Amino acid sequence: MSTPVTPENTPGGISRRGVLGLAAATAAGTAIGYGLGRGSADQALDEGATHPFYGDHQAGITTPVQRHLYFASFDMTSRADRDDLISLLQDWTEAAALLTAGREVGKTGAVDGPPLAPPDDTGEALGLGPHSLTLTFGLGPSLFDREGDTFGIADRRPAPLQELPLFAFDLLEDPISGGDLCIQACADDPQVTMHAIRNLSRIAFGRAQIRWTRLGYGRTSRTSTDQQTPRNLFGFKDGTANILADDADALKRWVWADDGWMAGGSYLVARTIQMTIENWDRVQLAEQEAIIGRSKGEGAPLSGGEEMTEPDFSMRSSTGDFAVPSTSHVRLAHPDLNDGVRILRRGYNYVDGNNALGQITAGLFFLAFQRDPEQFIALQTSLKTDALNEYIRHIGSALFAIPPGLRDGEYLAQALFEP
Amino acid sequence: MSTPVTPENTPGGISRRGVLGLAAATAAGTAIGYGLGRGSADQALDEGATHPFYGDHQAGITTPVQRHLYFASFDMTSRADRDDLISLLQDWTEAAALLTAGREVGKTGAVDGPPLAPPDDTGEALGLGPHSLTLTFGLGPSLFDREGDTFGIADRRPAPLQELPLFAFDLLEDPISGGDLCIQACADDPQVTMHAIRNLSRIAFGRAQIRWTRLGYGRTSRTSTDQQTPRNLFGFKDGTANILADDADALKRWVWADDGWMAGGSYLVARTIQMTIENWDRVQLAEQEAIIGRSKGEGAPLSGGEEMTEPDFSMRSSTGDFAVPSTSHVRLAHPDLNDGVRILRRGYNYVDGNNALGQITAGLFFLAFQRDPEQFIALQTSLKTDALNEYIRHIGSALFAIPPGLRDGEYLAQALFEP
Repeated sequence: MSTPVTPENTPGGISRRGVLGLAAATAAGTAIGYGLGRGSADQALDEGATHPFYGDHQAGITTPVQRHLYFASFDMTSRADRDDLISLLQDWTEAAALLTAGREVGKTGAVDGPPLAPPDDTGEALGLGPHSLTLTFGLGPSLFDREGDTFGIADRRPAPLQELPLFAFDLLEDPISGGDLCIQACADDPQVTMHAIRNLSRIAFGRAQIRWTRLGYGRTSRTSTDQQTPRNLFGFKDGTANILADDADALKRWVWADDGWMAGGSYLVARTIQMTIENWDRVQLAEQEAIIGRSKGEGAPLSGGEEMTEPDFSMRSSTGDFAVPSTSHVRLAHPDLNDGVRILRRGYNYVDGNNALGQITAGLFFLAFQRDPEQFIALQTSLKTDALNEYIRHIGSALFAIPPGLRDGEYLAQALFEP
Repeated sequence: MSTPVTPENTPGGISRRGVLGLAAATAAGTAIGYGLGRGSADQALDEGATHPFYGDHQAGITTPVQRHLYFASFDMTSRADRDDLISLLQDWTEAAALLTAGREVGKTGAVDGPPLAPPDDTGEALGLGPHSLTLTFGLGPSLFDREGDTFGIADRRPAPLQELPLFAFDLLEDPISGGDLCIQACADDPQVTMHAIRNLSRIAFGRAQIRWTRLGYGRTSRTSTDQQTPRNLFGFKDGTANILADDADALKRWVWADDGWMAGGSYLVARTIQMTIENWDRVQLAEQEAIIGRSKGEGAPLSGGEEMTEPDFSMRSSTGDFAVPSTSHVRLAHPDLNDGVRILRRGYNYVDGNNALGQITAGLFFLAFQRDPEQFIALQTSLKTDALNEYIRHIGSALFAIPPGLRDGEYLAQALFEP
């Protein structure tokens, strides 16, 4: 059989767009423009946009939220040792630097003669731009808990990295909770995120394997002042009071860790929160608004004003009750009623389709970054009396230490292994 | 509790964008521009773009393929009668005309005083534009097969609407096959398609219920000359030789039915084709190309040339074998080797995440429109010796009659009930 010379048979690192001889319509590295006015949930989509892989912090935390998510939790295989863990993080570092620049990992095909091995890269993103891909890596508590301390890192465990407690109403399913490692892949094209996780998973072969994944779409939180607040699957604006990327003081105080080798890193809480859509859809508008504490249309607090108006938690309605009800989600989650505690939310909506009863299997994949998981624990504990609990179920939970950013030549979490 | 007047308390049909006081950045009804050059799989994303709901044919067939799909198959409930079926199609017609124009179905809240009923519309698409939403409706064979002819339509059954035969290697799963009715929702935003199916499903309550659904993304077929051919999850360009929207002769000959009340309609074959991703990823490049019959990078037939070069099926390689192997997918599916038979493919990639073994659960949701299902049957029969069968599994199958388009004032499939 003849094997025509195909463009990807070129040696060396390959730009996915370059490989097809495309004069880039938009230069790689373009800063993403969020020039659309308030009221538009859409952002300009720039297929050539990239975010730097290297820096003080990992990308994908304060990065403007992209349209699509593929989140993967991995477990190290039973045979894996410290060298395997280090080599995996090294290989992932190398691949992630290529992928986030819109390049293939390795070569799609061999250079000379009939190829004897499968292509390094699986190829489904050839011709697609980087689409603002970010890859954010994390380490779970179980990695430090391994029997016999296989990885030799038990004494380097960051103090805040403890298993989360079981919260009221938690209905956690083990197969979609926990994990030794995680990768959060976000991009404006779902095939780009799929390609990244697929290839990073192939690279892990024999050292780590996927434990669970979660695909998400849409933006459930705004992370910059010129992004509109998107709506969750209950039809409400969500994340109005989030920590924004340009709020350096809040980031320093609430997001970036400063302890030991984790300095410049953060802690990620990932919760799969199923929403009982059909039950919610049978609730009256006024009741929906009382549960959330905001109006559905504008997203204004029930104490009045507009979306960005600060809620007045002392205001009473004509019935004598609080205008923002005592069991409303906004009230219970607000920093003012939680000693000022804040977190950076960066979650995604998910829809898995419909179950055998025809019900929509959907919800929020809650992702929040904080300097200490205690912040999440405090807020989630406050939500014990949240009226919203009747319509949601926390079915998955995981915590990961997100190592700091890195410089070219370093590998992920290098300071963990080389003090 | 106070109930602030929210913008959606306005009576009458509500524009989702208007409700938020947005000066539309892009006028509704904008024709979609596909000005990006070859090599770019991206299309300009215009959140305000709409496709007309009314016309000779239903939208969503020759419409340029949108980024996201939510496909739903419904069964009529056991109690439903002819009036229920007609009223459902009437209600769906009314709602679809609003949804495809980017409007809410009914009102989000009551107009006067505290609302006593849940909102008509679920609200999660408030503020989102129509994003080129199309809704395409179909009727399955089982609707005409009902015991006792509950719907009084058995004698109006279109002759071509017969259950598909079982093909070689079919591993069909009943819960994701068949259905009395279907809705294909396509748009450039996944929350817009979800909102449409969610609200159309609510409207069907008591008359029909969801049997199965399928979410898809990406474009697996090009339907116009200035769209680039996208790549499937095996990394190959797919749909190079598709029927294009501007090929009026081919549409007339191969896509539009002309029999009785179905004149101007079409027949939709929907197949869930799982791809064994990990197995494929271990196959050598040359072998992958031999299975497909095209090169991976350029997508050129293995007989040479470029993507759009017609394959030379008679050409032999130096080994004496056909350059485009006799078991290759391209060869077996090509019109030249199937008496010229063609179909209009409009499928989507799907990724459900990963199974308990960590394997990617993904594949192609194959959607094809034709004037007679015999076209699909002929092609699928030819694929019996397709080398690709080792790496795919047909796990879902359905056939639907897609009624013709309609004029304002008519309802879907009206001519079925009112000859």
